[in-house]
Amino acid sequence: MPVKNGGQYIERINKNLPEIWLAGEQVKGEISEHKAFKGLMTTQSAMYDMQLEDKLKAKMSYASPLTGDPVGLSFLQPKTKKDLAARREMMQIWANTHHGFLGRAPDYMNTSLMAFASAAGYLEEENPQYASNLRQYYAYCRENDITLSHVFIQPKASRWPSFMKFFEEPSAARVIEKNKDGIVIRGAFLLDTQGATSDEILVYPTPLPCEGDEENPFVFAFAVPSNLPKVRFICRESFVGGESTFNYPLSSRFEEMDTLVIFDDALVPWDRVFICGNEELAYRFFDESRFFTHASTQIMCKNIAKTEFLLGTIESMVEAAGLERHEHVVEKVTEVIIALETLKALQLAAEKGAALDRWGSMLPNRKPLLAANAYFPKIYPRMIEIIQLIGSSGLIMIPDEKDFDSEIHGQLDRYLKGIGLDAKENVQLSRLAWELSVSAFGGRQTVYERFFFGNSLIVNNRLYHGYQGRETFKQRVQDFLS
Amino acid sequence: MPVKNGGQYIERINKNLPEIWLAGEQVKGEISEHKAFKGLMTTQSAMYDMQLEDKLKAKMSYASPLTGDPVGLSFLQPKTKKDLAARREMMQIWANTHHGFLGRAPDYMNTSLMAFASAAGYLEEENPQYASNLRQYYAYCRENDITLSHVFIQPKASRWPSFMKFFEEPSAARVIEKNKDGIVIRGAFLLDTQGATSDEILVYPTPLPCEGDEENPFVFAFAVPSNLPKVRFICRESFVGGESTFNYPLSSRFEEMDTLVIFDDALVPWDRVFICGNEELAYRFFDESRFFTHASTQIMCKNIAKTEFLLGTIESMVEAAGLERHEHVVEKVTEVIIALETLKALQLAAEKGAALDRWGSMLPNRKPLLAANAYFPKIYPRMIEIIQLIGSSGLIMIPDEKDFDSEIHGQLDRYLKGIGLDAKENVQLSRLAWELSVSAFGGRQTVYERFFFGNSLIVNNRLYHGYQGRETFKQRVQDFLS
Amino acid sequence: MPVKNGGQYIERINKNLPEIWLAGEQVKGEISEHKAFKGLMTTQSAMYDMQLEDKLKAKMSYASPLTGDPVGLSFLQPKTKKDLAARREMMQIWANTHHGFLGRAPDYMNTSLMAFASAAGYLEEENPQYASNLRQYYAYCRENDITLSHVFIQPKASRWPSFMKFFEEPSAARVIEKNKDGIVIRGAFLLDTQGATSDEILVYPTPLPCEGDEENPFVFAFAVPSNLPKVRFICRESFVGGESTFNYPLSSRFEEMDTLVIFDDALVPWDRVFICGNEELAYRFFDESRFFTHASTQIMCKNIAKTEFLLGTIESMVEAAGLERHEHVVEKVTEVIIALETLKALQLAAEKGAALDRWGSMLPNRKPLLAANAYFPKIYPRMIEIIQLIGSSGLIMIPDEKDFDSEIHGQLDRYLKGIGLDAKENVQLSRLAWELSVSAFGGRQTVYERFFFGNSLIVNNRLYHGYQGRETFKQRVQDFLS
Amino acid sequence: MPVKNGGQYIERINKNLPEIWLAGEQVKGEISEHKAFKGLMTTQSAMYDMQLEDKLKAKMSYASPLTGDPVGLSFLQPKTKKDLAARREMMQIWANTHHGFLGRAPDYMNTSLMAFASAAGYLEEENPQYASNLRQYYAYCRENDITLSHVFIQPKASRWPSFMKFFEEPSAARVIEKNKDGIVIRGAFLLDTQGATSDEILVYPTPLPCEGDEENPFVFAFAVPSNLPKVRFICRESFVGGESTFNYPLSSRFEEMDTLVIFDDALVPWDRVFICGNEELAYRFFDESRFFTHASTQIMCKNIAKTEFLLGTIESMVEAAGLERHEHVVEKVTEVIIALETLKALQLAAEKGAALDRWGSMLPNRKPLLAANAYFPKIYPRMIEIIQLIGSSGLIMIPDEKDFDSEIHGQLDRYLKGIGLDAKENVQLSRLAWELSVSAFGGRQTVYERFFFGNSLIVNNRLYHGYQGRETFKQRVQDFLS
Repeated sequence: MPVKNGGQYIERINKNLPEIWLAGEQVKGEISEHKAFKGLMTTQSAMYDMQLEDKLKAKMSYASPLTGDPVGLSFLQPKTKKDLAARREMMQIWANTHHGFLGRAPDYMNTSLMAFASAAGYLEEENPQYASNLRQYYAYCRENDITLSHVFIQPKASRWPSFMKFFEEPSAARVIEKNKDGIVIRGAFLLDTQGATSDEILVYPTPLPCEGDEENPFVFAFAVPSNLPKVRFICRESFVGGESTFNYPLSSRFEEMDTLVIFDDALVPWDRVFICGNEELAYRFFDESRFFTHASTQIMCKNIAKTEFLLGTIESMVEAAGLERHEHVVEKVTEVIIALETLKALQLAAEKGAALDRWGSMLPNRKPLLAANAYFPKIYPRMIEIIQLIGSSGLIMIPDEKDFDSEIHGQLDRYLKGIGLDAKENVQLSRLAWELSVSAFGGRQTVYERFFFGNSLIVNNRLYHGYQGRETFKQRVQDFLS
Repeated sequence: MPVKNGGQYIERINKNLPEIWLAGEQVKGEISEHKAFKGLMTTQSAMYDMQLEDKLKAKMSYASPLTGDPVGLSFLQPKTKKDLAARREMMQIWANTHHGFLGRAPDYMNTSLMAFASAAGYLEEENPQYASNLRQYYAYCRENDITLSHVFIQPKASRWPSFMKFFEEPSAARVIEKNKDGIVIRGAFLLDTQGATSDEILVYPTPLPCEGDEENPFVFAFAVPSNLPKVRFICRESFVGGESTFNYPLSSRFEEMDTLVIFDDALVPWDRVFICGNEELAYRFFDESRFFTHASTQIMCKNIAKTEFLLGTIESMVEAAGLERHEHVVEKVTEVIIALETLKALQLAAEKGAALDRWGSMLPNRKPLLAANAYFPKIYPRMIEIIQLIGSSGLIMIPDEKDFDSEIHGQLDRYLKGIGLDAKENVQLSRLAWELSVSAFGGRQTVYERFFFGNSLIVNNRLYHGYQGRETFKQRVQDFLS
Repeated sequence: MPVKNGGQYIERINKNLPEIWLAGEQVKGEISEHKAFKGLMTTQSAMYDMQLEDKLKAKMSYASPLTGDPVGLSFLQPKTKKDLAARREMMQIWANTHHGFLGRAPDYMNTSLMAFASAAGYLEEENPQYASNLRQYYAYCRENDITLSHVFIQPKASRWPSFMKFFEEPSAARVIEKNKDGIVIRGAFLLDTQGATSDEILVYPTPLPCEGDEENPFVFAFAVPSNLPKVRFICRESFVGGESTFNYPLSSRFEEMDTLVIFDDALVPWDRVFICGNEELAYRFFDESRFFTHASTQIMCKNIAKTEFLLGTIESMVEAAGLERHEHVVEKVTEVIIALETLKALQLAAEKGAALDRWGSMLPNRKPLLAANAYFPKIYPRMIEIIQLIGSSGLIMIPDEKDFDSEIHGQLDRYLKGIGLDAKENVQLSRLAWELSVSAFGGRQTVYERFFFGNSLIVNNRLYHGYQGRETFKQRVQDFLS
Repeated sequence: MPVKNGGQYIERINKNLPEIWLAGEQVKGEISEHKAFKGLMTTQSAMYDMQLEDKLKAKMSYASPLTGDPVGLSFLQPKTKKDLAARREMMQIWANTHHGFLGRAPDYMNTSLMAFASAAGYLEEENPQYASNLRQYYAYCRENDITLSHVFIQPKASRWPSFMKFFEEPSAARVIEKNKDGIVIRGAFLLDTQGATSDEILVYPTPLPCEGDEENPFVFAFAVPSNLPKVRFICRESFVGGESTFNYPLSSRFEEMDTLVIFDDALVPWDRVFICGNEELAYRFFDESRFFTHASTQIMCKNIAKTEFLLGTIESMVEAAGLERHEHVVEKVTEVIIALETLKALQLAAEKGAALDRWGSMLPNRKPLLAANAYFPKIYPRMIEIIQLIGSSGLIMIPDEKDFDSEIHGQLDRYLKGIGLDAKENVQLSRLAWELSVSAFGGRQTVYERFFFGNSLIVNNRLYHGYQGRETFKQRVQDFLS
């Protein structure tokens, strides 16, 4: 199947339902009708449908190098600046559909897989078979428009060697057996967003050190179908507020479930193994594949769409409350404007500064992208705080859609209107602001953005140590002083 | 009835149920059994019971000057520093029961009413009857342990004269008629926390200006039973997550409903009117009664209890995750420690600097209290942010209590433990952190604290313009320069 | 004279010396040898010399449309994107000579005058003579490479009408007489940076309102020679630390004197008057000329050069102290990196988004520029704070160059070295950091950057109210909700 | 000599002049007449004179336990709360003389030495002679009113073992010889504030580790006369702006010189040695002596006086510029008010919570003090920033005192006045604000406060790990959850 439509997306997920647990019960039946997943799947279904819309399909797909059939454009390895622009345009279209609330829109993983596969050559030396596995897996996903999720980290108790000493039994994920069919994995992984509603899962944890072993059992990377036997997804609480898009404009559409994935001695076939045992390789491949650079181009589109949506929301709130001349409000809105202009400019700079890398990819300049990755986790919570500060008590005292259908609606109409908005419109805007800044959906979005590419130590180090060209500036100071 | 117990509290609220609307439906039956109110009423019921506990009753009550029976200590007008200390001790006991999550624990309104009634003399000149009404109302509440709520502000659309020009029909609350029985009120008021579960409501809105009128119809203060005819309470969405105290340790106990209160031409009898028509008086009485000073002593107890609870939570998180030596974690915890030490010191300074005022009250020094009122709305959101920053992805991927009763519990036990905590305890701690920093309950707490005594402009002005003794410092600079 | 060299610059300033007061004495003789001005004039002289350097002159000048002779490129009205790029390249060359420490490098005023003159058409309707005066003045400055300063604001006591009521005698600058020769001006203006070392001065104060007058005497714009009779410059204290470039690497070269300019009934000839009496025009012409947009392109070059210089300094400090692995240091350095990447990206975005305006100018997109203007005053002080935080006590205990020539130098050599630096080099780096973050020169730079384009209220309002395209985002939210 | 007067202070310093270097030259003659030291010594002389003023002497001194003569009250070991109050009152008197600008007013070292000597018992076990030396040294200083300075840290190049590997020759300070007369010290120490104008110096560096040595040569504590042979003080640049108290109200009076002290194989006699060789002891004695707690009581007085002085300055600026109604100004002033109220409350809490320690000292509660020590380095730079933000361009364009004596004074009088201030007064206020927030004197104050008790990591750790009673809060959370 080349680019799929929404119906195909849903049908495949429903058919291949993995083992999913939610609040102590296993999810059965059509997951697309389950209240925790329905809204998201409907949104994502509409996104897949866009791939086949007459007006959009030229922008959303390109011809498969294998079959000539249209495949998703976010799978395209960019080889020219035009490719980069095409990819950006495509990703912006999807981002403006979900307004940045999907952290794992399909183009995220498509792009990530493309990054890894483009650099598969790096694995050649270690094991040509691994390189080949990776390239074939990429082709498989591209040709079948696979919906993919991924996990990179483990629960805290499994993560730190220094931590493990506290426990009798080690719990770090590892290869417990290698046999002719593949490798057997035992362990748990975090935070598989959309894991329950994807076809496949890519597992590539941060390697843990291992003393004395020739082959480090804590090091591996592979991909498997989500319904692989002995794989289990455990959901957090659903943050869908309800089905009403009036009451819950965001969570009714964009609530991506996060899961804990447990591999309970699951067998991963050899042809799906990309890395196994070589700790240094596992570290370096992350860097060499320029995963963070490629993925950041997708995230940049998401973050810009989200910031625009926040700015639109905030300006609507300001207008409805007649606050345009309040200096402290103006100050706060300009913070959001500066954030938006900054992100857009950094996106432009990355694309304009792109250059071919050793894998033949037109690689965007990573400096503006890494800077943006360190910047957004700071500014997003501030923008949400601004919504709280501007919305104030209007974010607490919000009636329900049903109140407008009851006998008390007349009084709501009278007392709750805004400037240019009738009461129901004004309340609807408040509910949006509330979902963004007060609800559990909004709270999870804030935490998610804070830690999107790791905690601030990790993100800062990535920028600091990956910042090339700094010698110029030190030299300039030295020249000045001498 | 002197100090009441929890059963009496519940019985009276159930019996006198006012008109309450929630999500388009009127609340009927026993409100104490309604899932949106049950947890709060249970908590508050336990608090009322404490008034009669053998070990506590000496601290929780004092002898009524009318009957000698024990009445709630938070009704006591402090006339000595010992009184202040007794009041503090009593309020701290309740605060450590609700850990600061109740913004409208009964002692808040008891204290507020005491402040107003103590200064009733100020109303004498305007109208001796008003002064008498206020004193009698205070005695009535004290002798009957009335559970009281209040409203001070109006919806935005009703609030600003400059705003009104946008609308055809004015919606500001006002006296539409005065007759022999009383005054007839039309208008809506915000944010009546616990309004649905109180016996009575005190209404004292910020006066709006009115051109040319001798008697300003926008100016009034009164108190009425919550079930007064033509008074209606409209609830926001309930943020009770569920009944499980494991999953929802806070919202299952402390979710105070906020309401919009509508007076639809309701008649307020004359003996319940405290102010009517005199704009300047309405303004000055707020100040003259030292409402903010007295109320702040109660809020100080609440805020200290809350900060201690947050510090305990954060330190528990740090310990469970083994982060005691991470410098950025230490830095964040010290911020919380500094906040706690600051609040406790300001409380002490206020009490130590108390002096008798013209109403015979031993009035705490208001400078440290006003400073604390400006400080807490800034530091509370930061403490919640610190929980997010320390909790990170552990705040997102949290299973449900029921998962531990299902067949998957073994794997949770294995992968989700913390240092010194088994998996279930660790998850329980995470759920607490999640309720504080991610859930709608937590989000509403943050917004509530931000705006507790008004927005930052108002709070800053109150401190700035109420700051006495500044001349000393200017003089010192002048002396230095000359 | 087309582009002048450094010698000509100095000769002209010395020859036409205006009336300058410094610490109660009038400056006499060759100002270029005066210790308060020598360093700056030497620096600027070198900059003018660059205009005639073989390697640079093609980049620094263009052919005069009048004579074909080379004139300064910063006078060029940009009509194409290539012009914009050429202007940027030229300005970056100068900026990397003074490393951003000159707020009034010559290209600043050249650009400003170009902006006004390009929009002279706007004055036509009011008075064609004014338009012509402005164009001719621009041509005069361009053809003679005039060194120009400007004043836009007045001392506080003269500024606010509400302020004036406190004083018996009004002090706002105004036209006190109009006669056949010109207009007579009485008043004082602030902060004429480099006023004492410029050929001419452009005066264009923010208009003050005036009740009832047909012609507002507080409204005017003109340019005159700095040595016009009855014009007087009063200097602040000089922040030149001394002549040693070791001890004072910055102030010995870049200390721009600021002056208070007093017009004591000075006569401005008619052919130098550009605006007179029309308050609204004076306001709108600022906006219509896109002064802020054009000037911002020059400031952007300055600010990028300065940020690069700070980054180079900070990284040198980190290296010399061996702090590359300290997480709190990495965090701070990444803040500076993010600032630099942000500024460079915003510069790129402005240029890339340029479009022709009604005056035929290729006008950069002003959104990224206004955003940068609001951003830099916040980040500059933070970068200086970072120098303090990284430098710590090493910024206090710094010996003098002369100590290295004394008998104690052996011990300095032993105890004050850094990693990769001998003691003298290390101390020299510390002196640079000290001048940036502790000295009066550095303090003045910080205050100057904070208020470069006005205080934050003004800068925020300029961005907020000048932000075009916001409707798109509001519409997107509205579409989403409906 | 019991308490000395100012003349005696100056005479002794002049007579015993140590070896001091400033800008490559050795200071000779009467140091009290040297322009870099004169202002400070005059100020401190006046402070010593206060000890003998009739009105003050009862508050400034107490009867020596040895002779009954009056000795400085800051030498008093507090044994009761009354002692604490007396000490506070005395220190506040001096602090309000220097307005907090002296980091090393005499009471600082008097208090420090008292802390160490009171805990001398801790040294008994190691070496009773050391304990006796310390006690006798304390008695000597008290009875002779010795002006003392101290050094605790070394230059960076000497400080870190990991740093040393970069250098051929080790430069860490150490005992290079022990002989019958004493110990011979080689090394350099930082930041000996007032070292050049003190009688004696206490040296107690942070111990460096030393592998394999039984006696660690990097560990020692001792005190010697400042003019001990082979001890040398190297000054930084003087930040005295000039003698005019109009132009330089602060630096002409309060500029404390900092020095680098070099021990070039200087012999310390045995009776002045307090610790030698025992690394662990040297670490623990800092803690056991409660040095930070006792010293903090003095610093608290200093910081409160300084904050009051800043508040007075800021309010004077606000008044002179008519900014009392500007909301962003009000916000900033309230930040300063909150800081002041916080510091005063923490001081009160520390004193009120005092308890006897094992050395018989009435030890203030250290929690509020350690919190204040972590708080002040954050808020001081913010207060200085607030001065910049309120002062704006008025901090740059300030004339000189001499301008008012020149022929141009009439125009200054006209244009530079403020509300309630004539021009000269207004300019004088501006010069004060400039010295605080722009000058090198002000810059050094800011850096000094940032690092007063060490960098933020150190200060935070001291608070975090020294915070007792935290178990209560964790337990409360645990009880709540179970």
